[in-house]
Amino acid sequence: MTTKSDTRTVTRVTIREVAAAASVNASTVSRVLNPATRHLIGDEVVRRVLAAAKALGYRQNRLAAALRGGQSRVIGVCLPDIENPVFPPIVCGITEALAAEGYGVLIANIVGKIKEQERQVEQMLERRVDGLVLATAARQDPLVRRCILDGVPLVLVNRGEDGGQVPEVVNDDFLSMRLAVAHLVGLGHTRIAHLAGPQRLATGLSRLQGFQIASQQHGVAGSVVVEAAEFTREAGRAACERLLDAHRDVTAIVAANDLIALGCYEVFAARRIACPGAISVIGHNDMPLLDMLNPPLTTLRIQHREMGRQAARLLLGRIATPSAAPLRITLAPELVIRSSTAAPRAVSRKTAGVGAA
Amino acid sequence: MTTKSDTRTVTRVTIREVAAAASVNASTVSRVLNPATRHLIGDEVVRRVLAAAKALGYRQNRLAAALRGGQSRVIGVCLPDIENPVFPPIVCGITEALAAEGYGVLIANIVGKIKEQERQVEQMLERRVDGLVLATAARQDPLVRRCILDGVPLVLVNRGEDGGQVPEVVNDDFLSMRLAVAHLVGLGHTRIAHLAGPQRLATGLSRLQGFQIASQQHGVAGSVVVEAAEFTREAGRAACERLLDAHRDVTAIVAANDLIALGCYEVFAARRIACPGAISVIGHNDMPLLDMLNPPLTTLRIQHREMGRQAARLLLGRIATPSAAPLRITLAPELVIRSSTAAPRAVSRKTAGVGAA
Repeated sequence: MTTKSDTRTVTRVTIREVAAAASVNASTVSRVLNPATRHLIGDEVVRRVLAAAKALGYRQNRLAAALRGGQSRVIGVCLPDIENPVFPPIVCGITEALAAEGYGVLIANIVGKIKEQERQVEQMLERRVDGLVLATAARQDPLVRRCILDGVPLVLVNRGEDGGQVPEVVNDDFLSMRLAVAHLVGLGHTRIAHLAGPQRLATGLSRLQGFQIASQQHGVAGSVVVEAAEFTREAGRAACERLLDAHRDVTAIVAANDLIALGCYEVFAARRIACPGAISVIGHNDMPLLDMLNPPLTTLRIQHREMGRQAARLLLGRIATPSAAPLRITLAPELVIRSSTAAPRAVSRKTAGVGAA
Repeated sequence: MTTKSDTRTVTRVTIREVAAAASVNASTVSRVLNPATRHLIGDEVVRRVLAAAKALGYRQNRLAAALRGGQSRVIGVCLPDIENPVFPPIVCGITEALAAEGYGVLIANIVGKIKEQERQVEQMLERRVDGLVLATAARQDPLVRRCILDGVPLVLVNRGEDGGQVPEVVNDDFLSMRLAVAHLVGLGHTRIAHLAGPQRLATGLSRLQGFQIASQQHGVAGSVVVEAAEFTREAGRAACERLLDAHRDVTAIVAANDLIALGCYEVFAARRIACPGAISVIGHNDMPLLDMLNPPLTTLRIQHREMGRQAARLLLGRIATPSAAPLRITLAPELVIRSSTAAPRAVSRKTAGVGAA
């Protein structure tokens, strides 16, 4: 059995060998292989060198190039939870846009506390990433502060930060809530509740503010807010229980994300509450399989992939021009109407004592 | 406004500065910072150098260390589709196990054809990854062949390869099928169909073979196989339609994955076929939200995360000992019984003409 690592070392082709095959100096080969200096060499020689490199199977060493040129052409991406279905399509958009520009993506799934986050980001910086895309930001984020102080090119995606000093690509949560409330008001609802996300995250805050503004605009007097501790099914269930215990007259719920809405479904099932018959619910994000639930969930579809693509482009721009003002890009969501929203039971029937009918 | 990149360059601390602060030579600092040579230096000096490095905010340059030491401590991970819910938890397991060992993860989401796959893997090799985890393998995979020839340390995850020359970590698909068929036979089914996955992938083939063996063992005479072109809902729907058109007596379906089972749900809804009343169905993988479908889907839960963790460990072992024989690790699945499987309608009732009762 051959030793793979031996094979690998033995077959590694050097610049000298390429130079010999193309009958030029090694320095000429270096200049040809570097896009920044290729124009210094005549076309005929460039062609000959590239042909020799290809024929010999020469592989550029990008680490050496990164050390010389000061750019690794690698970007670090930090995620709070790759298993939350919001993030894979964002990663997909980021890698797609960066691969097209010849950039690699170092990924970190940062599940731990701030210390662990710092450790992983520190490792990325030791690997000389050219910049970072953070999907992990809280509204007050020590890691973001630190990257700013360190002068690391940085873009936030999906979740923004309060400081406003960092470029970000996020969903237009105000528009989301305007679309959600308008849909419910159009159906005839007047007692509408918002199951808010955690207020330490920008998405939690902006959806809550958006809900309050939209409720005011539509003159919805009976709007109620209950905060879920996390963007999860479990937290959604707990928040929904508190809501229904305290506010029996609510006929519609705008959940801050789909998982919170799924927590509502669990409560409805446990309490035998008909949806949308007795109560309507709207999610947020449009994660996979919502169309197959019972009932299929009405939700706001966010542009996950485009968010990732835009974040990648914004970061490349930032690396090229670090002094540019930090842009904030918002992408428009789309209301996807399925079967979890319907007109409320007529009040007249209720007051007429039809009861369980 | 300050220019970030300037700030960054200015604040970068050198080994010389650390040496001056610790009153030692620069070469001593280098030896202390390299785990392989640290033992050459006395404990007191090691402590002084590390304290000075920390106080000054010295950041190691891992690119330079990688060039010197020949190891980048970065692993490349190639995925066929990060949006397929099988892969995020696998990535999670890989990054978790590698981060614990100080390794970074370069990720590529390889959606294109073989040329694009080769281009992305080539870039990873130019970045001098120490090894690759491929979740993209087909049974006959040119990319795997090429990595073997290139002597790149390599581990396959989730999908194996026919050659058997590469270590792999996969689900025990034979056990999956044994559990599925035993469950259905236990309920009284005798006309059982398999909606197979694409046979160019190892998961497609091994689940089919597992189904055939399990059917034989249980003496199921009336087993039928129809192949889905892809592991997707759409392909599952098409395959289910073909199956039901050709074999009206089938009472249970073992789908090669959850998405194919969801395709069956779509056909059942369109044709008003009751599940599990008229037909039972079992999925494979246990992707998120199956418990909230109507009916909740019975499935085989695979150990996604553990698969990722094992693949990472196997690769690190491979890098340390390239000549070791290629292991194949299989992980045991677990049958998760929900509500999409039930006893078939009694044949006696059927023949007695009770009809729709």
